[in-house]
Amino acid sequence: MAGNVFGNLFRLSTFGESHGAALGGVIDGCPPNIEIDLEAVQIEMNRRKPGQSAIVTQRKEPDEVRFLSGIFEGKTTGTPIGFVIENTNQKSHDYSHIKDAYRPSHADYVYDQKYGVRDYRGGGRSSARETACRVVAGAIAKQVLKEVKIQAFVSSVGHITMETPYQEVDFKSIEETPVRCPDIEVAKKMESYIKEIRKQGDTVGGVVTCVIQNVPVGLGEPVFDRLHAELGKSMLSINAVKGFEYGSGFEGAKMRGSEHNDIFNTDGTTMTNLSGGIQGGISNGMDIYFKVAFKPVATIMQTQDTIDKDGNIVEMQGKGRHDPCVVPRAVPIVEAMAALVLADYYLLNKTYK
Amino acid sequence: MAGNVFGNLFRLSTFGESHGAALGGVIDGCPPNIEIDLEAVQIEMNRRKPGQSAIVTQRKEPDEVRFLSGIFEGKTTGTPIGFVIENTNQKSHDYSHIKDAYRPSHADYVYDQKYGVRDYRGGGRSSARETACRVVAGAIAKQVLKEVKIQAFVSSVGHITMETPYQEVDFKSIEETPVRCPDIEVAKKMESYIKEIRKQGDTVGGVVTCVIQNVPVGLGEPVFDRLHAELGKSMLSINAVKGFEYGSGFEGAKMRGSEHNDIFNTDGTTMTNLSGGIQGGISNGMDIYFKVAFKPVATIMQTQDTIDKDGNIVEMQGKGRHDPCVVPRAVPIVEAMAALVLADYYLLNKTYK
Amino acid sequence: MAGNVFGNLFRLSTFGESHGAALGGVIDGCPPNIEIDLEAVQIEMNRRKPGQSAIVTQRKEPDEVRFLSGIFEGKTTGTPIGFVIENTNQKSHDYSHIKDAYRPSHADYVYDQKYGVRDYRGGGRSSARETACRVVAGAIAKQVLKEVKIQAFVSSVGHITMETPYQEVDFKSIEETPVRCPDIEVAKKMESYIKEIRKQGDTVGGVVTCVIQNVPVGLGEPVFDRLHAELGKSMLSINAVKGFEYGSGFEGAKMRGSEHNDIFNTDGTTMTNLSGGIQGGISNGMDIYFKVAFKPVATIMQTQDTIDKDGNIVEMQGKGRHDPCVVPRAVPIVEAMAALVLADYYLLNKTYK
Amino acid sequence: MAGNVFGNLFRLSTFGESHGAALGGVIDGCPPNIEIDLEAVQIEMNRRKPGQSAIVTQRKEPDEVRFLSGIFEGKTTGTPIGFVIENTNQKSHDYSHIKDAYRPSHADYVYDQKYGVRDYRGGGRSSARETACRVVAGAIAKQVLKEVKIQAFVSSVGHITMETPYQEVDFKSIEETPVRCPDIEVAKKMESYIKEIRKQGDTVGGVVTCVIQNVPVGLGEPVFDRLHAELGKSMLSINAVKGFEYGSGFEGAKMRGSEHNDIFNTDGTTMTNLSGGIQGGISNGMDIYFKVAFKPVATIMQTQDTIDKDGNIVEMQGKGRHDPCVVPRAVPIVEAMAALVLADYYLLNKTYK
Repeated sequence: MAGNVFGNLFRLSTFGESHGAALGGVIDGCPPNIEIDLEAVQIEMNRRKPGQSAIVTQRKEPDEVRFLSGIFEGKTTGTPIGFVIENTNQKSHDYSHIKDAYRPSHADYVYDQKYGVRDYRGGGRSSARETACRVVAGAIAKQVLKEVKIQAFVSSVGHITMETPYQEVDFKSIEETPVRCPDIEVAKKMESYIKEIRKQGDTVGGVVTCVIQNVPVGLGEPVFDRLHAELGKSMLSINAVKGFEYGSGFEGAKMRGSEHNDIFNTDGTTMTNLSGGIQGGISNGMDIYFKVAFKPVATIMQTQDTIDKDGNIVEMQGKGRHDPCVVPRAVPIVEAMAALVLADYYLLNKTYK
Repeated sequence: MAGNVFGNLFRLSTFGESHGAALGGVIDGCPPNIEIDLEAVQIEMNRRKPGQSAIVTQRKEPDEVRFLSGIFEGKTTGTPIGFVIENTNQKSHDYSHIKDAYRPSHADYVYDQKYGVRDYRGGGRSSARETACRVVAGAIAKQVLKEVKIQAFVSSVGHITMETPYQEVDFKSIEETPVRCPDIEVAKKMESYIKEIRKQGDTVGGVVTCVIQNVPVGLGEPVFDRLHAELGKSMLSINAVKGFEYGSGFEGAKMRGSEHNDIFNTDGTTMTNLSGGIQGGISNGMDIYFKVAFKPVATIMQTQDTIDKDGNIVEMQGKGRHDPCVVPRAVPIVEAMAALVLADYYLLNKTYK
Repeated sequence: MAGNVFGNLFRLSTFGESHGAALGGVIDGCPPNIEIDLEAVQIEMNRRKPGQSAIVTQRKEPDEVRFLSGIFEGKTTGTPIGFVIENTNQKSHDYSHIKDAYRPSHADYVYDQKYGVRDYRGGGRSSARETACRVVAGAIAKQVLKEVKIQAFVSSVGHITMETPYQEVDFKSIEETPVRCPDIEVAKKMESYIKEIRKQGDTVGGVVTCVIQNVPVGLGEPVFDRLHAELGKSMLSINAVKGFEYGSGFEGAKMRGSEHNDIFNTDGTTMTNLSGGIQGGISNGMDIYFKVAFKPVATIMQTQDTIDKDGNIVEMQGKGRHDPCVVPRAVPIVEAMAALVLADYYLLNKTYK
Repeated sequence: MAGNVFGNLFRLSTFGESHGAALGGVIDGCPPNIEIDLEAVQIEMNRRKPGQSAIVTQRKEPDEVRFLSGIFEGKTTGTPIGFVIENTNQKSHDYSHIKDAYRPSHADYVYDQKYGVRDYRGGGRSSARETACRVVAGAIAKQVLKEVKIQAFVSSVGHITMETPYQEVDFKSIEETPVRCPDIEVAKKMESYIKEIRKQGDTVGGVVTCVIQNVPVGLGEPVFDRLHAELGKSMLSINAVKGFEYGSGFEGAKMRGSEHNDIFNTDGTTMTNLSGGIQGGISNGMDIYFKVAFKPVATIMQTQDTIDKDGNIVEMQGKGRHDPCVVPRAVPIVEAMAALVLADYYLLNKTYK
């Protein structure tokens, strides 16, 4: 209940601070007899890891996962999968300046207020480093859902937006640029913009779009555990996320019923897909698509006023190596969380058969 | 796990189809010794009920709640609160035309696919009538959170939008118009627009904004159960919701860190509140505010093509009395879900003390 | 989390005090398309209800169940099944003498201490009347598990014990005597003993044995949710239960491995069944059997000293109509809880296929 | 839901096979600001570990715990506590003989049936080695419950029983003998008996009694999550456990109400304690005591017939180093599970204040 367990039947428990000994987790409920491609897991980790390109943080962390149980002779056994990622790059001295001060728009203040104590080394548990464990578990979940295709990409950085409808996106281009926007022209603009922002010691927000194909009909548990509600929660649980919309989203709120309704084809598919692949909280077999809004990273390389524990105003200067824009590295995290939700709901749906 | 239970410590289980005998629920985990104002519960019910004004559905349902347990001599006892709302207005014959056909953008098709069976009388469990139970439980939750003030209002209908920042909203005006938009001028435009839409046999979407004041610092359970993640899930679990954003929301994704960061005052409050009252998933004591996007109601009074169970194309004509725009009646539902989340997280947070 | 929800996938929430308006519950997760025999439900209720024979409490309560949702045209729909049992026999004045005093070995004292308030009318939520809802849900669960046969019986009352091994029990004789012991000779002795005890204004404990046949191999979730662990919890959650043992039980603790091991037949069955149908927490297809110990009913028709709220010693005289021995009426409750556990674990096990 | 998560608010997830790389777990929900004595954790581990005396298995495993998160500067931070115990003594070749054969009264057969696959190296997940993680988490839970005293001991081995009532037990003597029976004379007899049993290549069962002192009034969540129900489940989830009884237990089923009722003293304590410290599922402040029955270890050093995967009869000869009697090493495991339950219910009870 303390917030570090995700999922019902496919259930992930994670632990780990950014500057502690290690991060890790336990996946309970992974079905048995799934062949696990460990290399595929590491590929997902590499998509998330720092230092992968010129527009992300230049910290070097190998982010190697060590699986400790639940996989035997290359297959899952149905027992819990334990894993650990050692922290090899903890430079605690980098963070001594924030020991007693609260960084603006970070979690420092609320952690101290809630728990009465805080691991002040680099954000501790509130650091986005925590998402590494999500990516590990998501990579396993993807292998459970062999038929389903989950692909996310950057659709906007600041004011620069890719306008292509999801149906026309060339998914193969996503990984071709460091920014992970599949429209190469737009991607280049985003890349330049991020570099410019970084030069100014500033940061910028962005949007990740996710498209899920080949989803079986029937996933989702009305009324409270609608599929999109759990997808929404999973995305909103990622650091820096401020919004979630699926299908027609906020635009749909402006529309009329006569233009918004998706008319059926005779095979149960629909001519349009403003529903976003989910009706009444249950997948209808059409593509699921949604957008996730990320705020700009709070740590900026500029001087800001802030307060210390005693309420004194102190000056704070951003230090260390941080992302000027989080969305390129957020792409695999969005996919991972989507995979966790789908694997969970896929197992839940089996109980009706 | 089948989706009809909400919350962890303050936990609601609901049941009931739109045209069955009754709806109802059980609230487990309500703290003892809370004085319950039953009239206040009924007032919330009246804000949600059909027939309350000229711009909502003209069905007549008294929506009277009968409490069956858990309240003794005017106070909660800590035992579960059972309640029932009898259905008094079920006209099943109204719905015979949808027995074998699937209404576009409704849940008919997916229910049949998922469960292999469907209570076809008026949507059954997928009907928004289900939200009556949420409002009952939310009204109890509000009485647990005596200090906290949860107020929602309509901020847009179709393209008509109230632009007032949440800080300047006159909450006392919300209930002054049937549309529940606190800017009376804008409310009037919305009302006319809804009437026009209805005349055309059409429907339109809208947005509800919710502001929560006097929230104690410390509510929220990182990492997966961040306060806004659970608020998001709770809102996305309401019928017809397509999007959720809090604080700066999707606009925040366009901003720079230097303009987005909320600088502290010496008392721990912040000068701006782009964070939306939540940092790192934990309430920081500032106002929480968020927006919820509702799509247009799918039942329109126009003829549409659709399919029947065997994949034949059939013509469908909307019948019955439906809302041309759902947001005025959604206001108390949004508040109720927010209250359920806050009551739950308030109890969770007690375990740290 | 407040203790009124049972099960994971087949989940029951109950409510209701002995002298409130009604009791009831919600079953969430019942699979769709199960034909429900409502008469069979009422038969189980009649086995539990007061006044059914000369050796149980002579209170008259019809215990009629009204189903409010989730069953349509005779079948479950996969949506939650709500039900209510009205209280028609509440004589609150019977209980005025316990308003301020704590009955020995009842829950009065601890309820006041825990909740700071108590519905003092006849035990309120702590009354065994609460088990009526368990029997309703258990009767539905039995219909989900059409192949499985769950049969309980009284195996001892006070010092009178039926020694027959479970394999030789004539299950058809269980309902032939009011005491529900299948050995008719022993049953008669038990009956006389209970009558004698009642004449003395006293009560006596007993043991219920339960045998479950035709259980599929594979039910149970190691390590913490072993099948017998959940069965044990479910039984220990029934009023007045003091002990649970399965298979060889406490006798097994005296045995040697060489005599205790169940040797396999070539088809995977075992020659003996000291394991009690469960190995490593998972059903092995052999009969599951266990014993449940019930203490004597605490309300006796004799004068006892006790204390009031202020710690003053007061004299208490048992009043009303109470069971001299609880086990005959506990038989259907034990079966119901076993059915709830098995239905839940049956659904859980589906997720591995 | 797959059975490897225990607890609600104080929640443990574990992983690990007996012959995999490592075991470990995550404790989520441990309150912040608890000083952790790591040496005390290791002491509990040493009480459980193999090779500690002449009457237990002579395997050598250091069982050293490495904490990876959640503890900072000697105190808990409220974030999850991850820990790992490396397996250093895996001799997989010892177990090649059981790869295709099913050991009688082990979990081999049911694991293969349930999961369709099995880590056959030494029992894998079904090995009692798994309990090491319970002891780690229990040792942390004990430190959360500073006032509460949880002490278990061996009360019988085979037919040799210590008859001392729990009130007269000299707890200081428990650790004085390797058998962990506080009556030194009886302990010596048990020790000789275990040695004799081992010489015969056989094993024997036993009983562990646990006494919990200084429990606050009010722990326990009726109706389904009664304190003793969860204690029972926790004990029945330990390998080899066949029965659980608390307070008067199975003996209570033979008694009359007039002798079984615990009469109050004026301070709310009771003159007798047949209730076992729990009434109506809620602790009443008196000592909690219960008994746990363990069957004899299934692995015996004798030749037994069994079957292989194809149903052929094969001869099996016990190999390796196994416990002739499990109860001396079970004592810290019983305490650990009791501590986990109490910590969880202690946190749950805070939500009522």
